[in-house]
Amino acid sequence: MTLAIDTPQLVARFVDVRSTTDALAARLTAEDQTAQSMPDASPTKWHRAHTTWFFEEFVLRPDPSYTMFDPSYRYLFNSYYEAVGPRHPRPHRGLVTRPGVVDIGRYREYVTEAVVRALDAGRLDDAARALVELGCHHEQQHQELLVMDVKHLFSTHPFGPVYVERPADDLSAPAAQGWSRIPGGIVDIGHDGRGFAYDNEGPRHQVLLADFEIADRAVTVADWLEFMASGGYGRPDLWLSDGWATIRAEGWVAPGYWELVDGRWTTYTLSGRRPVVPGEPVCHVSFYEADAFARWAGARLPTEFEWETAAAHRAGERGQLLDVDRVHPGRAGAAMVGDVWEWTASAYLPYPGFAPAAGAVGEYNGKFMSDQHVLRGACAATPPGHERLTYRNFFPARSRWAFSGLRLARSAA
Amino acid sequence: MTLAIDTPQLVARFVDVRSTTDALAARLTAEDQTAQSMPDASPTKWHRAHTTWFFEEFVLRPDPSYTMFDPSYRYLFNSYYEAVGPRHPRPHRGLVTRPGVVDIGRYREYVTEAVVRALDAGRLDDAARALVELGCHHEQQHQELLVMDVKHLFSTHPFGPVYVERPADDLSAPAAQGWSRIPGGIVDIGHDGRGFAYDNEGPRHQVLLADFEIADRAVTVADWLEFMASGGYGRPDLWLSDGWATIRAEGWVAPGYWELVDGRWTTYTLSGRRPVVPGEPVCHVSFYEADAFARWAGARLPTEFEWETAAAHRAGERGQLLDVDRVHPGRAGAAMVGDVWEWTASAYLPYPGFAPAAGAVGEYNGKFMSDQHVLRGACAATPPGHERLTYRNFFPARSRWAFSGLRLARSAA
Amino acid sequence: MTLAIDTPQLVARFVDVRSTTDALAARLTAEDQTAQSMPDASPTKWHRAHTTWFFEEFVLRPDPSYTMFDPSYRYLFNSYYEAVGPRHPRPHRGLVTRPGVVDIGRYREYVTEAVVRALDAGRLDDAARALVELGCHHEQQHQELLVMDVKHLFSTHPFGPVYVERPADDLSAPAAQGWSRIPGGIVDIGHDGRGFAYDNEGPRHQVLLADFEIADRAVTVADWLEFMASGGYGRPDLWLSDGWATIRAEGWVAPGYWELVDGRWTTYTLSGRRPVVPGEPVCHVSFYEADAFARWAGARLPTEFEWETAAAHRAGERGQLLDVDRVHPGRAGAAMVGDVWEWTASAYLPYPGFAPAAGAVGEYNGKFMSDQHVLRGACAATPPGHERLTYRNFFPARSRWAFSGLRLARSAA
Amino acid sequence: MTLAIDTPQLVARFVDVRSTTDALAARLTAEDQTAQSMPDASPTKWHRAHTTWFFEEFVLRPDPSYTMFDPSYRYLFNSYYEAVGPRHPRPHRGLVTRPGVVDIGRYREYVTEAVVRALDAGRLDDAARALVELGCHHEQQHQELLVMDVKHLFSTHPFGPVYVERPADDLSAPAAQGWSRIPGGIVDIGHDGRGFAYDNEGPRHQVLLADFEIADRAVTVADWLEFMASGGYGRPDLWLSDGWATIRAEGWVAPGYWELVDGRWTTYTLSGRRPVVPGEPVCHVSFYEADAFARWAGARLPTEFEWETAAAHRAGERGQLLDVDRVHPGRAGAAMVGDVWEWTASAYLPYPGFAPAAGAVGEYNGKFMSDQHVLRGACAATPPGHERLTYRNFFPARSRWAFSGLRLARSAA
Repeated sequence: MTLAIDTPQLVARFVDVRSTTDALAARLTAEDQTAQSMPDASPTKWHRAHTTWFFEEFVLRPDPSYTMFDPSYRYLFNSYYEAVGPRHPRPHRGLVTRPGVVDIGRYREYVTEAVVRALDAGRLDDAARALVELGCHHEQQHQELLVMDVKHLFSTHPFGPVYVERPADDLSAPAAQGWSRIPGGIVDIGHDGRGFAYDNEGPRHQVLLADFEIADRAVTVADWLEFMASGGYGRPDLWLSDGWATIRAEGWVAPGYWELVDGRWTTYTLSGRRPVVPGEPVCHVSFYEADAFARWAGARLPTEFEWETAAAHRAGERGQLLDVDRVHPGRAGAAMVGDVWEWTASAYLPYPGFAPAAGAVGEYNGKFMSDQHVLRGACAATPPGHERLTYRNFFPARSRWAFSGLRLARSAA
Repeated sequence: MTLAIDTPQLVARFVDVRSTTDALAARLTAEDQTAQSMPDASPTKWHRAHTTWFFEEFVLRPDPSYTMFDPSYRYLFNSYYEAVGPRHPRPHRGLVTRPGVVDIGRYREYVTEAVVRALDAGRLDDAARALVELGCHHEQQHQELLVMDVKHLFSTHPFGPVYVERPADDLSAPAAQGWSRIPGGIVDIGHDGRGFAYDNEGPRHQVLLADFEIADRAVTVADWLEFMASGGYGRPDLWLSDGWATIRAEGWVAPGYWELVDGRWTTYTLSGRRPVVPGEPVCHVSFYEADAFARWAGARLPTEFEWETAAAHRAGERGQLLDVDRVHPGRAGAAMVGDVWEWTASAYLPYPGFAPAAGAVGEYNGKFMSDQHVLRGACAATPPGHERLTYRNFFPARSRWAFSGLRLARSAA
Repeated sequence: MTLAIDTPQLVARFVDVRSTTDALAARLTAEDQTAQSMPDASPTKWHRAHTTWFFEEFVLRPDPSYTMFDPSYRYLFNSYYEAVGPRHPRPHRGLVTRPGVVDIGRYREYVTEAVVRALDAGRLDDAARALVELGCHHEQQHQELLVMDVKHLFSTHPFGPVYVERPADDLSAPAAQGWSRIPGGIVDIGHDGRGFAYDNEGPRHQVLLADFEIADRAVTVADWLEFMASGGYGRPDLWLSDGWATIRAEGWVAPGYWELVDGRWTTYTLSGRRPVVPGEPVCHVSFYEADAFARWAGARLPTEFEWETAAAHRAGERGQLLDVDRVHPGRAGAAMVGDVWEWTASAYLPYPGFAPAAGAVGEYNGKFMSDQHVLRGACAATPPGHERLTYRNFFPARSRWAFSGLRLARSAA
Repeated sequence: MTLAIDTPQLVARFVDVRSTTDALAARLTAEDQTAQSMPDASPTKWHRAHTTWFFEEFVLRPDPSYTMFDPSYRYLFNSYYEAVGPRHPRPHRGLVTRPGVVDIGRYREYVTEAVVRALDAGRLDDAARALVELGCHHEQQHQELLVMDVKHLFSTHPFGPVYVERPADDLSAPAAQGWSRIPGGIVDIGHDGRGFAYDNEGPRHQVLLADFEIADRAVTVADWLEFMASGGYGRPDLWLSDGWATIRAEGWVAPGYWELVDGRWTTYTLSGRRPVVPGEPVCHVSFYEADAFARWAGARLPTEFEWETAAAHRAGERGQLLDVDRVHPGRAGAAMVGDVWEWTASAYLPYPGFAPAAGAVGEYNGKFMSDQHVLRGACAATPPGHERLTYRNFFPARSRWAFSGLRLARSAA
């Protein structure tokens, strides 16, 4: 963690990130912010408190003159940082009704002001300021989780509440998919150390790639409807063994949040349940579904190394990132970053020479390097400024609550 | 259901019951009212809405001129009344964050006023007024459930919130237990039809009893500590097979909500975690534990027929009933009604000739006549006016979240 | 336990019971005798060994000169007798592949001969001889369980093996059902102490009954098909709450072992899968189903006291009991004992004044006096001589693997 | 699949493989061969039949003149070959008591003879002969599974049966561990097509490796005891998040089959329970444990590419492979193939350009390419001739019933 920005920039960024979280929460009632709809998800209230705890624990508390807002929060809002001490069990986060949202709001203000004061007064050394920057990224990551979790919560409500209104969707067909050929060779993979990155994006290292082709847009809803119409969910030959077992056990016959209403496929969105939109990238599919689709299409998923190499060719392009007034992917376009995360063929494993950051903040990305697959890109719930070409997102193969889609690849002829 | 009270009395009772629910909720935040801590429990918000739904569905809706507050509530706040239509699944009640507590408060007012208006205007016939009375008892029953559920929810909070402050406990030893001999013979059991009763309390019928003895107070915390000290939770010979399996699987070594803190037994109460009080009746024990204790004590539980017969001898006496400023049992005394419910040896089965009330309101007590045990009396969470000598409460044998204790009996020498 | 028979009679009975077990096992391979198809069931091998263990443990081992066949069997073949020491966990009985059936056969011979020798030599006092008699009944009870368990195991086999051939079934319609009126009053219930009985059949005591009517035959397959055709499994109003939850969770739409084959209902029997037989009593229904059927039929189940009182009127009549060459109920006839067990409305609870037998053999019937319902009569898997009018069989309400049916009752007009 | 051996060699190999399976089964009773101790395992009887089914289904049945031994076996002994038709559900394999071991023995003979006849008569074309060779490897793989499954089954037996006697163990300390430096660069990975290989071992392709070091022996029991003594199972910082959750949920504090007996660690082996042997490679550890150990030791696991590259340096060396008279690893030595499988850091994923074999036999290795980790080498249950330097074994990260150990690696300084 080296800091690439000066203090005034850091203060501005910190304040901006903090206010985005509050803007996301502002559309939610106290009740909405309390519920936890599954063990993997967390209440909004908890996200707001936990991101605040991070700054209090790692930035403020080392200063002996700092007075904690409430010492009990240290236990309640720690997450997986085992080194910091005991934690409240994750599946019970929805039962911690106190402190309430008003208290959490005050906690946020208290800590925000204390951090700003400390920064302004120059009381934070480089390491502490790097932790502020890390905390901003940490909070942005939780902003995305907050959106995912609210979407999941609202999707369980029988009447699909509207988080935010959205204009009518463009229901025209997507553009045809083309292929881009990417030459192989020895490529550099991982973050080059300029600017912020998570520890798991490094060390930068070399990988040998063969030539390959990659699709010039994500797989769309229209593509997916074809896959479904051709019986894709009923053909065991298309599926990994665990994938087949999963879709049978879960009864999956369509992406997450899809429901057949009066003979027409709809999906729950944060603007309520709506007909699916052919030109949008398919979203809320598991790795298993992405893999089966690719096989059906006579293609495959790219590895994360292929993905990163191809993305470098379109470095500046962005699809839809988080917009508090939309929170929904745009139409499938050329950009590889934005709209939906893209499952890759790669398991989430350490890069050669990987070492986690020292101390408790190192208990972050490295702990999860098993039983997960890498997704690349970013999505309509990713705050702008949080996305990076080297960013490695990861979820278990069966997971569907992220904004997860896919892009096809194939080996060059 | 015959109505024993005139309309002004009914209005007064209705308004009083409705306001007690609101008084119970007033000490809870919106967040507290939203969470559901286990599938058996319901959020406070749900209790407040469901009891209101009862009046809207059965009393107001039959009037075609009535405008529903919100038609979606019909689905959301039905409980087990299958005849009324589909229902929201019970374990997900904590996820219905909308409507919120403010909406529910308005719903309550709207329906309360509509019922009062209809009563005052004489628009309700006898059957409808009987349903208002039934609805009052139904709401009182939910007041007790609300208290049980909040206690369970708060008990899961790592810092045991205080629902209401309570003065210091009297830690003196309980009085010694004596026995009362009750002569047997053919006795009348069940409600005699004067005043309100649930359908499951009738028909009144005759039962042949042998002479028996019954303890003159409930089993106390002091008694229970002796049982524990003598290894009661470790002796399979004392336990029913299912009871032994349950305490092993659950790891139970003490009543519900008890925890050893610094070598001393404490229990979570609605005034926070406190040392256990020797002179209070033991509370939050399962049928299995009550049964094992009785065997250890060389006694047994009374049948519900013995209990009712013995209770008739102390008809006017009451222990602690619901007091919103206490919500905790009093010291074990002579009264058989109040403080804690008392497990009986009887399974919950229909009385000879039992027929449920007609229509949807009949889906109430009769549906549960299997796999449950009867408790008699009433407890510190039972609203005054809801208790009756013939009242048949019931829970599965493993259940501990009711305010459940026991009283010993033995066959007469 | 008092012994009503002399030693030669006891030897004859003992030898006869022992040989029946072996006759039941003789139709099974070593592989058949090893498998355990669910936690509630046990392998045939285990039944053969456990019934032998009973004699070794309680009759032979108290004699210090007795040499155990294999001391490790004491651990392996104890069942729920906690007082005797640790036991092998029930769900893993199918994994104890050693000792094998040949060893178990030798164990059986060894113990049989030792018991006969001890009896012949007059070395057993009254208490020990009473234990031999108890052991015979215990073994007969396990013969019935063995049949139930083999039927369950074979029913899971994709090709439904034939345990024994059986002639073609009589597919004619059953006789119409009539009613017998039984006068109420104070009746004596329970075993009178003449001859053998289990502890749970006493003490004999008085119960007050109202007049009632009872059907003159069991409910038949033809009756059940009507219930199914009228939508009985789809009407929540007919079902207890736990019953409805059970049939929904399990997907039950017909009795146990029934399957629709080419549009026709069949059932697995120990002679293979066959079309259901209209004139036979319905079998393998749960208490929940029996209760729902009775409600649909405008009747109810008899209490166990009504049943016993009615059965006393037909004391000598027997339907089909265990016949190793058939193992299947006969047509529904007048006898109340035989063909199928009949669910009663009574929960399985101790009679007034009940005390279990002393010592480990007392850990037998009393331990299960919760969460179960009483069945009366006997069935086509009950060995002749094991049936009694006062016999109290019991299973959880959801259980279907016993040969369980029902007979209707109603209160007298 | 190209065939490198001539027909007489193939016949000899086929007969040899078939007889090894029977030799493994010969030490087991019919009862032993029937039981299934967990869903992942299969009964010996099933392994014997399924490996036979493979030859019947793929080699013999295409010949229209072939008469199947028993058509019902086609359903019973298919495994995951979805293309072949419906299959009996895996967790119920232990309930298929018929056919029995004698029938299975006859089935084996029947098919063995038919295959030999067909080979001898020159009736099998190249493709069919390649399937015979594949079937031999398939059967060898099942030989290893059979050993694993019997070990698991016997380990659940309270008295730990002896499958085969083994001489006393050498309890001396292992040699100190040294390191070998392996130069990196572009290396060739995967099978080169000479001789038999599974589809998942190819295509051979190039991978770029950095220099690294690899231990000159596997991690031993002595090493593991040190890890345990230093609190390795109690330090969350050493564990992957899923690993920590697993060992807490399972209560693991030592490798699989280890038990503390009288204060001393023992392990169940196929020669019965014995004290652990310091100089042997640690065995029956999960990927999570291997990973945590490596972290504790300041090292890491090798990738499968590093492993294969290092192993090429010791190409001819073999540790203990399957010996029916031992079935237990030897002391940790220099060989990388044999004794125990070695967990690698690599997830089990397709090599670039991987395509499964055509037809049903292709449903073999490719279906499992998610959620598993690669192990390399071979173990004391791997039949000689089945091991290869390019062999890719795979199991889920939590799995411990394979003979799985580890070898340390580290990046070159």
